[in-house]
Amino acid sequence: MQEFQRQQTSPTYQNRHALENCTDGKIRAAFFISDGTAITAETLGRSILSQFASVPFITKVIPYVDTPERANFAVEQINTAYQEHGLLPLVFDTIVNDGIREIINSAQACNLDMYEGIIGRIAEEIQVAPDDQGGHAHSNVDSENYKARIEAVHFSLDNDDGARTRQYPMADIILIGVSRSGKTPTSLYLALQFGIRAANYPLTEEDLHEIQLPNAIKPYKDKLFGLVIDTERLAAIRNERRAGSRYASYAQCEQEQKAIQAIYASYGIPSLDVSEMSIEEIATRILQITGLKRRIG
Amino acid sequence: MQEFQRQQTSPTYQNRHALENCTDGKIRAAFFISDGTAITAETLGRSILSQFASVPFITKVIPYVDTPERANFAVEQINTAYQEHGLLPLVFDTIVNDGIREIINSAQACNLDMYEGIIGRIAEEIQVAPDDQGGHAHSNVDSENYKARIEAVHFSLDNDDGARTRQYPMADIILIGVSRSGKTPTSLYLALQFGIRAANYPLTEEDLHEIQLPNAIKPYKDKLFGLVIDTERLAAIRNERRAGSRYASYAQCEQEQKAIQAIYASYGIPSLDVSEMSIEEIATRILQITGLKRRIG
Repeated sequence: MQEFQRQQTSPTYQNRHALENCTDGKIRAAFFISDGTAITAETLGRSILSQFASVPFITKVIPYVDTPERANFAVEQINTAYQEHGLLPLVFDTIVNDGIREIINSAQACNLDMYEGIIGRIAEEIQVAPDDQGGHAHSNVDSENYKARIEAVHFSLDNDDGARTRQYPMADIILIGVSRSGKTPTSLYLALQFGIRAANYPLTEEDLHEIQLPNAIKPYKDKLFGLVIDTERLAAIRNERRAGSRYASYAQCEQEQKAIQAIYASYGIPSLDVSEMSIEEIATRILQITGLKRRIG
Repeated sequence: MQEFQRQQTSPTYQNRHALENCTDGKIRAAFFISDGTAITAETLGRSILSQFASVPFITKVIPYVDTPERANFAVEQINTAYQEHGLLPLVFDTIVNDGIREIINSAQACNLDMYEGIIGRIAEEIQVAPDDQGGHAHSNVDSENYKARIEAVHFSLDNDDGARTRQYPMADIILIGVSRSGKTPTSLYLALQFGIRAANYPLTEEDLHEIQLPNAIKPYKDKLFGLVIDTERLAAIRNERRAGSRYASYAQCEQEQKAIQAIYASYGIPSLDVSEMSIEEIATRILQITGLKRRIG
């Protein structure tokens, strides 16, 4: 295998702009490979690739590479990508088994083993040998985690969009906001990722007009958290759903946003502008702002 | 900082069982730190910690460490954990900014920078300098990805539990299974993680009794995917919901499972035993079995 230099300050890539055109617009393949779901390899790999925003990558996830046959098939796919695109593919892997990893390393690629080194350093530090078993990263079956997660998902579903309110005493948080401000995906992400029982309740035009909280949620004021969204973004999202409607008009969106922020202010409800955020970011920020504890992980 | 050996074959941790007691049951702290959501650091970090199943870790996620003040506060927390537990904490970080990372590295800890080396190796290979900006890992705002994801989540919600069937022509997949076999969380995960429009439909006792597909889903046979769950596990899950009921009895669960597997077999519906799997695993396996393409990522 080719040896790669690790020095971060190498003069060969100091001048980013001069180098950006090196690829001549060619697409480079990147693989995320694991003996499990490959979610870990993919998450870290994509995060690292995002540091090279100017490079056009084509990506492929190959999960469950847990036999020599599957490893050889993965190698074939990597080598084919090399032939097709003419650039050495990047291979991010989190394979624990030495034999399987050796097969993957035989591909014509720049191999980036994400565990290598880190596991060794930890073992050295804590003086415990690693278990050397793959694919266990996300096995939370039969655990309290699994139950908490399923319960939270069902809770969020049952309490989506103000469908019912009698379970609100059990809610960890109740998201409020105007229609299409991201309440539902955020509730579900909080449930799936953190096991948090997140209800959500839409404020109606009447609530907004009167600048007051509906009676149904007033008793739970301390659990409320408000979403705010940029007017243009909201109008764009609503236009996807009902193009040209009053509902999707800029004026309507603006009025609703102003009214809801007045409600947040008058009741002292913490809120977050989610316009520039992904669902992961919204959920993480909410935990940070509210101090809400995750139930899993 | 202390220097750690990287050799994987060091004799000091060859004999796992002899070494397992080295910690004397002491708890070791592990931190997942990032200038963004810290989801990447946490995902990889937990995956790596799962390789040391015998070690009791206490973990803490610190997101948005993007200023020297926040970095210093993180260092305080790490040092406090060291004093409290008496073992050097492990610090998994994905911080890109050099100044911030240096502050984190000043903590009394075993620092495990997950980007170090890998980003340098890629830059060297592809001859492009990294962007050197943190927190962008999950910024998929304003992209087609974001829209696809939101649409998929709303689709899955609207089509949960057989609530309606008129959108089935637009479904990518329709999960079927008995009550509490994991259809809903799997549908939502497929939507959130992969942007897949996943509906789900529960088979009733009558359907199961007659060993046939309900008319509502017969036209979509090619989109159906069946979940199978171990009888004991199903009974346990149902007992959490309605303890002691006929619904939760072993006999009832066994009968339903037999009937539904007969339906899968007679209609040639692909299926998966999800008993030992986390939601991530179920979703990933379904993609693998069906060849369904993710719409995002």
